[in-house]
Amino acid sequence: MSDALTVINQYACFNGTVGFYRHASQVCNCEMRFAVFVPPQAKQASVPVLYYLSGLTCTEENFTTKAGAQRYAAEYGLMLVAPDTSPRGEDVPDAEDAWDFGKGAGFYVDATESPWNQHYHMYSYVVDELPTLIHANFPVQPDRTGIFGHSMGGHGALICGLKHPDRYRSISAFAPISAPSQCQWGQKAFSGYLGTDRAAWQDYDATELIKRGARIERAILIDQGTEDTFLAQQQLLPEVFAAACEQAGQPVTLRMQPGYDHSYYFIATFIGDHIQHHAAALT
Amino acid sequence: MSDALTVINQYACFNGTVGFYRHASQVCNCEMRFAVFVPPQAKQASVPVLYYLSGLTCTEENFTTKAGAQRYAAEYGLMLVAPDTSPRGEDVPDAEDAWDFGKGAGFYVDATESPWNQHYHMYSYVVDELPTLIHANFPVQPDRTGIFGHSMGGHGALICGLKHPDRYRSISAFAPISAPSQCQWGQKAFSGYLGTDRAAWQDYDATELIKRGARIERAILIDQGTEDTFLAQQQLLPEVFAAACEQAGQPVTLRMQPGYDHSYYFIATFIGDHIQHHAAALT
Repeated sequence: MSDALTVINQYACFNGTVGFYRHASQVCNCEMRFAVFVPPQAKQASVPVLYYLSGLTCTEENFTTKAGAQRYAAEYGLMLVAPDTSPRGEDVPDAEDAWDFGKGAGFYVDATESPWNQHYHMYSYVVDELPTLIHANFPVQPDRTGIFGHSMGGHGALICGLKHPDRYRSISAFAPISAPSQCQWGQKAFSGYLGTDRAAWQDYDATELIKRGARIERAILIDQGTEDTFLAQQQLLPEVFAAACEQAGQPVTLRMQPGYDHSYYFIATFIGDHIQHHAAALT
Repeated sequence: MSDALTVINQYACFNGTVGFYRHASQVCNCEMRFAVFVPPQAKQASVPVLYYLSGLTCTEENFTTKAGAQRYAAEYGLMLVAPDTSPRGEDVPDAEDAWDFGKGAGFYVDATESPWNQHYHMYSYVVDELPTLIHANFPVQPDRTGIFGHSMGGHGALICGLKHPDRYRSISAFAPISAPSQCQWGQKAFSGYLGTDRAAWQDYDATELIKRGARIERAILIDQGTEDTFLAQQQLLPEVFAAACEQAGQPVTLRMQPGYDHSYYFIATFIGDHIQHHAAALT
């Protein structure tokens, strides 16, 4: 492991290793943390890698402790990488009293508006800097990469995957913010980080990307709980995204899961299906 | 559900339900909380029930969010019940600055020393009051009950099971405090809750119970990580318990797991084996 990376903690888990790491991020201009699950298969050979992007208020820990993903990643031989959801530290500006903007809410964009444009570059962090660091320090096959996420992180997975079909072979999402330009969370984040010119938003809106021709070969898998309060509040709009996909000929599987909400109990229930979806594309 | 029980939260999970509940406890003389996973099979018929006792500093949440147990409980059709680890509330005395005594550290005994004897009756709570409440409010088969736990809760599972082989058909533990009279954690807890007369400790020491003739028909399953720092600190002493079992003819399977520590990553790795162990006895 290079000097660029510092181990915070490592734990044996399903015959592999869960590790938490920190490093000086150039693009976010601060120290960043992420978690990795290295499956047992990586002791013998390089393995495919699957990135997970978390939702509002989360860090690299939520998915790692609550999703129950390691069991399946160990079964299929996939590495899991879970970054934090925003830049961190005392030098990083925050929105006081807001849990849906600022720290914990980077929204996977490269901010252009001051003061956010000094640190809030989660898009470039996720698609460029973090993979470069992973490829240099872990036994992965860079050409076998998938991406998934939850809520704000589902939005992140959709846009990263759709903007880079050359880098990501497979995409899936749990309850993603699917048309951020059309919901309050997205409008608040985009106007704050990107400014009020909506033309700049389109590059980070999965539904708009599909309308403008973005495609990925394999079907996108989306699970959405029917009792998710944020679905009722029109923050997620998966049906808007699915309709855009259908019109554009992008294969998508949107599964409405009766009774499920927005929590990690929902994610844990279907994480096995998602990892299987990615394994089918990556292994 | 009776008026005695208040629902705090419920979540769909693996086609069953995770619920958090609170109630006025008579034996602990305060409000208590616990978590239940009701598996999908309980929609058709009553199911066996498996109690999980948590370790120092935990509440009913740690196991429920981190162990990944619901997947297996749903597969085998077992209900899971996870109580808190001590009485709670402003009226309940606590040990300031101690994480291994007082709140979060009830040690599954009925305290006899003042001021702890007003609330700290976790033994009676686990073996009597909570099962009575569960039987009255959930579709369980009371004659098909198992118990397991982690660390302090592993100690709890061993003593509850060994003292009531009529009530518990199966016992297992992760890194249990196996001979509490012989380790610092146990000595601190027992002298505080039970007084300095060691004769009173024997009733709550699994190794002493085995020596005095306690037996359970089925083999006790214990998993212990070799890299567990508390094992090195002689707080757990599973080999002392296993030796007592061997001498007494009590079947025990002690598995030393190379590389694993004391965390929930260790528990999550082997939770499937433990639930299978209980399912073999209960279903």
